[in-house]
Amino acid sequence: MKLNIAILPGDGIGPEVTAQAVKVLKAIAMEFNHIFTFTTGLVGSAAIDKTENPLPQETIDLCKKADAVLFGAIGDPKYDNNPDAKIRPEQGLLGIRKELGLYTNIRPVIAYEDILNKSSLKIKQIKDTNILIYRELTGGIYFGERFLSEDGNTASDVCEYNRLEIERITHLAFKAAQSRKNKLTLVDKANVLESSKLWRRVVQEIALQYPNVKVNYMYIDNAAMELIINPRQFDVILTENMFGDILSEEASVIVGSIGLLASASTGDKHAMFEPIHGAFTKAANKGIANPIASILSAAMLLDHFGLDEEANRIREGVDKSLKLHITTPDLNTKYDNISTTKVGDFIEDFINNPDETNLN
Amino acid sequence: MKLNIAILPGDGIGPEVTAQAVKVLKAIAMEFNHIFTFTTGLVGSAAIDKTENPLPQETIDLCKKADAVLFGAIGDPKYDNNPDAKIRPEQGLLGIRKELGLYTNIRPVIAYEDILNKSSLKIKQIKDTNILIYRELTGGIYFGERFLSEDGNTASDVCEYNRLEIERITHLAFKAAQSRKNKLTLVDKANVLESSKLWRRVVQEIALQYPNVKVNYMYIDNAAMELIINPRQFDVILTENMFGDILSEEASVIVGSIGLLASASTGDKHAMFEPIHGAFTKAANKGIANPIASILSAAMLLDHFGLDEEANRIREGVDKSLKLHITTPDLNTKYDNISTTKVGDFIEDFINNPDETNLN
Ligand SMILES: CC(C)[C@H](C(=O)O)[C@@H](O)C(=O)O
Ligand SMILES: CC(C)[C@H](C(=O)O)[C@@H](O)C(=O)O
Repeated sequence: MKLNIAILPGDGIGPEVTAQAVKVLKAIAMEFNHIFTFTTGLVGSAAIDKTENPLPQETIDLCKKADAVLFGAIGDPKYDNNPDAKIRPEQGLLGIRKELGLYTNIRPVIAYEDILNKSSLKIKQIKDTNILIYRELTGGIYFGERFLSEDGNTASDVCEYNRLEIERITHLAFKAAQSRKNKLTLVDKANVLESSKLWRRVVQEIALQYPNVKVNYMYIDNAAMELIINPRQFDVILTENMFGDILSEEASVIVGSIGLLASASTGDKHAMFEPIHGAFTKAANKGIANPIASILSAAMLLDHFGLDEEANRIREGVDKSLKLHITTPDLNTKYDNISTTKVGDFIEDFINNPDETNLN
Repeated sequence: MKLNIAILPGDGIGPEVTAQAVKVLKAIAMEFNHIFTFTTGLVGSAAIDKTENPLPQETIDLCKKADAVLFGAIGDPKYDNNPDAKIRPEQGLLGIRKELGLYTNIRPVIAYEDILNKSSLKIKQIKDTNILIYRELTGGIYFGERFLSEDGNTASDVCEYNRLEIERITHLAFKAAQSRKNKLTLVDKANVLESSKLWRRVVQEIALQYPNVKVNYMYIDNAAMELIINPRQFDVILTENMFGDILSEEASVIVGSIGLLASASTGDKHAMFEPIHGAFTKAANKGIANPIASILSAAMLLDHFGLDEEANRIREGVDKSLKLHITTPDLNTKYDNISTTKVGDFIEDFINNPDETNLN
């Protein structure tokens, strides 16, 4: 298969972790006789520095022409404490999601057997957890009207949804549930919000078309608790943009490190793959950033094109790295100095020689 | 002291747990020579059933005349799966918060030494956690304009804040931090939301008046993770209405049961005290509801009137009940049949005879 992949490394640790994912994809291409070409584009703070635009038109064009986008991370502390900044790196990420029409964000949450003890949660609590979060990605309060009064003393944001926006991701989430444990939980705040009521109404209607899927409805405050006290109750979680943002980052505590969570963002025409972690600027250029979220995002990219064997090869490599403690310091209590690159190298080696790779 | 207390038991387990809190307050009045009078009012589903109004005018009047309100719980499953219901129990709670101007909701999160092992989190993770959440309670998306298109296919909610709303609670949160560990964390989503930017701007300005308080800024998604992986980093958390709703329920996992979390809601003229848990209708009338959140809310009521010794007596009683495993089943792995009433009785006895109360 020929794939033209746009690489947007972005900010902070983005470039380092993305480099490992690219390395792994190259190994896959070699090993399985594919032709993957990579073209890099600017986004985020890196793009602002060079072009004063967090999402240059060139980058949009690049992504639209590509078969898929691999995204690094976004954000920069220099903007975080400056609420007056008119231009912000995050606009690059939100802009690309909107431009590419990536309305479905899929975030798997898996308690890996070999690192159960890395979680803040008790092992018995998280064992066998396997959740797929379907987060709506181009609607809601992220993209509603914003308002700031002239005197700067009143500000507002609108959370808006329409039926179509809810329907399209809901069908995908139900289909995913059908290929899993036939359970779907809608998370909303329908006891207060009009937009949540619409979500609940639409999901109730669509549920009738998937009679074998058991549907639960949960308020976001309750879900934030249940995710920790009983994560195994969840199979597919479906939710709107902001609740999905919160729940998925929270869910990283089950996995043990946010450095392990990958995601796929898909629309009708385009697809982008990105770690759920941020730019983590403090850790940049130290060789300590965990590349696994990015590498697993590359595996989701392969899944997207039906390259199952290839994607699984990557996942086996990741599993093996976890088993052998070839991991960055966020997860490692056994070895001291395993760097971002070293983890990438190990998984690359595994792809080339799945039966022989071992600690060296 | 003479206190005229309005009791709004509400729905589900509300009446049972509130009855225990009233029992405890009566014991305090006896023991410390106060005169507490209690008047009960209708709210929530209970009020809808009798008056078709989740918040009858009579209840509002009762609360406005009272020195303080003790609130039970609200919600009813018969409304939860009916997004079309025009009248909902929650309107009773939101209405009373608004009518009484209760803009500050204070939710303590304490990892009680005697039940550390009840948490889903590892003991070393939560030990010594003591957080005070300041949740803004009468603004934001809870009270913004709502919209549903005529065809029912588009719905929206507005999250709006103005400077005054942010300032008044921010000063209170800073003062609380000064009486504690001098640390305040503002939780927002200022990388995306205009209203969050206003929060960040106002808090940055006010921070200058409290130079001894160390201020941190955290995005809500990140906070939902940090609350679990490193809860001890927090002292006072300040946040807007919905983020406070989510974080405080999530924080219950640190404590081990949502049945332990109390809160105070205060304004310029009125004050209300309520458990953060909901109506938990499935558990109603079985004698298994944990009354401690309600009893600790009564202690916060006494704090509010400067009755420190009285409030502490209640807290000592609660601590002793936890130490001796006189707890409802949500916490109890030692004894089988300790009911809601039995827990209330134990704490009542303790108030009367603090030195003698023991398991009997
Ligand atoms: C960087 C930020 C705008 C983004 C979001 O909130 O969507 C991030 O947190 C994510 O989850 O992808
Ligand atoms: C019942 C509900 C409307 C309420 C809220 O969301 O504020 C509750 O969850 C709370 O936290 O007090």
